[in-house]
Amino acid sequence: MHLNANVLASGRHDAAWRLSDNPRSVDDVDAFCEIARIAERGTFDAVFFADGPQLAADFDRRPWHSLDPVVLLAAMARATERVGLVATASTTFNEPYEVARRFATLDHVSGGRAAWNIVTSQSDDAAANFGHPRMPGHAERYARAEEFVDVVVKLWDSFEDEALLADPVTGRYADPARVHRIDHVGPAFRVRGPLNVPRAPQGRPMIVQAGDSGPSRRLGARWADALFTVQRTCTEAQAFYAQLKGLAAANGRDPDSLVILPGLYTVVGSTQAEARRRREEMDALLDLDVQVALLAERLNVDPQRLTLDRPLPDDIDGQGGAGITSGFVENILREARRENLTVRQLLGRNPFGGHRLVVGTPEQIADNMERWFRGRAADGFNLNMDAYPSGLELFVDHVVPELRRRGLFRTAYEGVTLRSHLGLPRAPSRYAPASPGLVAATR
Amino acid sequence: MHLNANVLASGRHDAAWRLSDNPRSVDDVDAFCEIARIAERGTFDAVFFADGPQLAADFDRRPWHSLDPVVLLAAMARATERVGLVATASTTFNEPYEVARRFATLDHVSGGRAAWNIVTSQSDDAAANFGHPRMPGHAERYARAEEFVDVVVKLWDSFEDEALLADPVTGRYADPARVHRIDHVGPAFRVRGPLNVPRAPQGRPMIVQAGDSGPSRRLGARWADALFTVQRTCTEAQAFYAQLKGLAAANGRDPDSLVILPGLYTVVGSTQAEARRRREEMDALLDLDVQVALLAERLNVDPQRLTLDRPLPDDIDGQGGAGITSGFVENILREARRENLTVRQLLGRNPFGGHRLVVGTPEQIADNMERWFRGRAADGFNLNMDAYPSGLELFVDHVVPELRRRGLFRTAYEGVTLRSHLGLPRAPSRYAPASPGLVAATR
Repeated sequence: MHLNANVLASGRHDAAWRLSDNPRSVDDVDAFCEIARIAERGTFDAVFFADGPQLAADFDRRPWHSLDPVVLLAAMARATERVGLVATASTTFNEPYEVARRFATLDHVSGGRAAWNIVTSQSDDAAANFGHPRMPGHAERYARAEEFVDVVVKLWDSFEDEALLADPVTGRYADPARVHRIDHVGPAFRVRGPLNVPRAPQGRPMIVQAGDSGPSRRLGARWADALFTVQRTCTEAQAFYAQLKGLAAANGRDPDSLVILPGLYTVVGSTQAEARRRREEMDALLDLDVQVALLAERLNVDPQRLTLDRPLPDDIDGQGGAGITSGFVENILREARRENLTVRQLLGRNPFGGHRLVVGTPEQIADNMERWFRGRAADGFNLNMDAYPSGLELFVDHVVPELRRRGLFRTAYEGVTLRSHLGLPRAPSRYAPASPGLVAATR
Repeated sequence: MHLNANVLASGRHDAAWRLSDNPRSVDDVDAFCEIARIAERGTFDAVFFADGPQLAADFDRRPWHSLDPVVLLAAMARATERVGLVATASTTFNEPYEVARRFATLDHVSGGRAAWNIVTSQSDDAAANFGHPRMPGHAERYARAEEFVDVVVKLWDSFEDEALLADPVTGRYADPARVHRIDHVGPAFRVRGPLNVPRAPQGRPMIVQAGDSGPSRRLGARWADALFTVQRTCTEAQAFYAQLKGLAAANGRDPDSLVILPGLYTVVGSTQAEARRRREEMDALLDLDVQVALLAERLNVDPQRLTLDRPLPDDIDGQGGAGITSGFVENILREARRENLTVRQLLGRNPFGGHRLVVGTPEQIADNMERWFRGRAADGFNLNMDAYPSGLELFVDHVVPELRRRGLFRTAYEGVTLRSHLGLPRAPSRYAPASPGLVAATR
C-alpha cells in the first residue's frame, strides 16, 4: 500500500488553522520541513503540494497554497532523506523547458525524490495573472497539456545516463553523441533542446496526474506513474480503478506501473468518541453562514434557497458551478440525493475538498483502507489530514503501526528514490542505445 | 567593502574542473552547499549564480550552468544562515507572476537573503528552447524588461506587511484592505494580482543587474540595488561608478542605495611565485588550439589568421562576434592594441570571462582591491575565483583576513538579511499607508 500526504496549507478541515497546535502562517518554511520529517518517520511514499498561481478567493478566512512548491520542496528535501516530494505545476501557464529543468533540478537536489503533478488549471483568477481574460477552454487546455508533457519528457530524455564524462585526463567533460536535440515542432510549442541538466537520478522525475474528465483520464493513462482521484464510494472507485488500469494496458503499459491513489480525509481518535470530539471541536470554529454560501457557489444556486435542516432543492443540477469539470459537483449531488441528506448533513461530508471522510479509531480507518486496497479500488491513498501537523502525527503514530501490523504497509524504506518506493523502475531515455529508440517516443 | 562570489560551474579558469581538488559534476548539490558555507565563513555578502536556459555550446569541454538556480539556492539556503543568495532569471523567457513568486519564496525559505539578477538573455540557443527562431532585438528585450521588473515589484508590494492576521479568535486570516490587485496593463503584460505570497522578509527581494549598454544602464540605475559590471581598468571603472551613481541620483535615489560591484578574477598564492604556479598549472591543462578557436569566434575572425606569438591582425573590429553587445569584445580589443599583446599574451588575460585578472599574494590582491575601493571605482567586488572550492577557500582564509586587518571588510555579519549586509533599508510597499502610495510607483 502506498501513502501520500497532501500537505494542505493548514489542513483539510477549513478551521484547522484555528486549533492551537497548528502552524499559523502560510509562509512558515520550518513548519513545512517538520511536516515532511513526520511523513518520513511514517515511511510515507511522498508529500504533495497542490498549487495554483493565484491568491485564493477566501484568503481572508483561511490559509491558502502560497509559496512556490518546487522551491519550498527543495528546502524540504534538505530536511529529509527518503520521503518523495510532489509538486503541482500548470501546463497552461508555464513553458516546458522551464518545468523540465525545475523538476530535474528538484530530482538532483533530493537524490531522486521528485514528482511533477500535471494540472491544466481552472481558475479565471489565475488566467488574469498571465494576460488571459479567462481560462482557455477545457479541450484547448488538454491539447496543450498533452504536447507540454510530451516535450518535458523528451527534454528529460535528451541527456543520456552516460553522457557526463568529467574525465580530467582527456579533458572531455561530456559526450555529445549522448546528448540530443529534441527538435520538437508542434501546434503549441517549438523546443529544440537539449535540456541543460544531466539526466535526473530517477531517469525521469515521477509524473502524477489527477482529474476526472475523459481527456484527463487519457492523459493520465498515457503519462502518469501515479493518479490522484476523488472517489467517494468503494464501488465507484473499483470501476475507476479497473478502467484506468485497462487504459494503461491499452497504451501498452504494465497496469502495475500506474499507481492509483484515491483521496482519503481522516480524523483520528483513540476511540470513536474522541475522533468525533476532535471533528466537532473544529466544526464549532466554522462560520455556518460562510459554509452555506460556499456550498451555494459550488452548486451554482442562490444561497437563499438552501435551508440548513432541509434537503437540497430538487432542481439543482450543478451546471456552471465551481469544480464542475473535476467531477466534484456531480459527486456531491449524487451523494446528497442518494442518502436524502439535509444541507447541514451534507456540509459534514466535506463537500468542498471532495474527498471522502472517515472519522474513527486507527483500527476503523485501517479497516476501511484495507477493504479498498484488497478490493482493488486503490493501490494506496492520497491522505488529507484534518490538520497539519497534529492530524499527520496521529496518523503516523497510530494508523501506520496498525497498517504495518496487518502487513499492508512497509516498516522501512527499501530504496532511495520515489520510484523505488512505488515499485516503479527507473525510466530509460528513449535515446539510449538499449532502448527501442524513437519508436517509443509516445511514452 | 562588499564581496560577492560568482559561483561558476567549476571556476573562472576554463581548466579548473581538471584540478584534482574540485567537485567534478555540474549537478553536485552537496558541493554547491559546501561552497556557500565557505563563503559564509568568509562573511561574504552573497553567492551568485549566472544562468541561461540553454545548454552551453562547449558542454563537451567544460562544466556549465545547469541546475535551476532558484531551486538550487533554496537547498543552499538550508545549509547556511547568513550569506545572501543571488540567482539570474531572464525577463525574456519568463512570466512576471512566476518570477515574483519564485524569488519571494526564496526570500521566505532563506529568511530574507534572496536577490534576483535581471537579465534579458542573448543566446539564440535559449530562444530556440522557447519557440523563438532567434532572440528578440536588444530594444525589444529591454522594453519588455522594464515592464517586467515594474510588474514584479508591484506584485511584491501587493501584500502589505500587516496583511496577515492569522487570528484564531476572530477567524480572520488576512486583512483584504492590505492586499492589493495591481491591475497592470501594459504593452507586454496584463497582470491583475495580488501575488499569493505574503510580503517577503526583505520587503522586496534585492535586485541585481548587469550589462553595459545604454538601456541596460538606465534599467540598472532605476531598479537595481546592486550592479555587476565588467571593468578592466581603474580609470574606466571610476567613470562608470560616477555615471551610475549620478543616474541613480537623477532618478531621485540616494546614490549609496546603488552598490557597484565590478568583476574581479583572482588567483591567490602565499607568494607571487606560488600564485603564478597555480595559474600555470591550470593553463597547462588547456588545449591551446581550442582557446585560439574560441578567441577567433569571439572576435569574429578566421582562426587561421591568429598566430600565437604575433599581435592580432590590424583589421579586426569584433563586429558580429559573440559578446559584442555586452562590451566584452571592445574591451579585449582595446587592451590588446594598447599593450600590443600577442595572441598568447591576450589568452592569458581572461578574454572570455571578461573580468580583469589579478594573480598574486593576499597582500597584492588586497592592495589592488583597496585602491579601487578607496578610489571610488567600486563599492566592492563580484569575485570570480579561478576554481571552486579551492580558490574560494584560499581567498577566504588569506585575502579576507588581510582585508579585515585593514578595516575594509566586516569581521562578522551584523544583520540577518542580504539588504542589511549591503546597508540597504528594508523596502516599504508602495501601497502601505505610511508610504507616498502610488506616486512612488516608478520605483
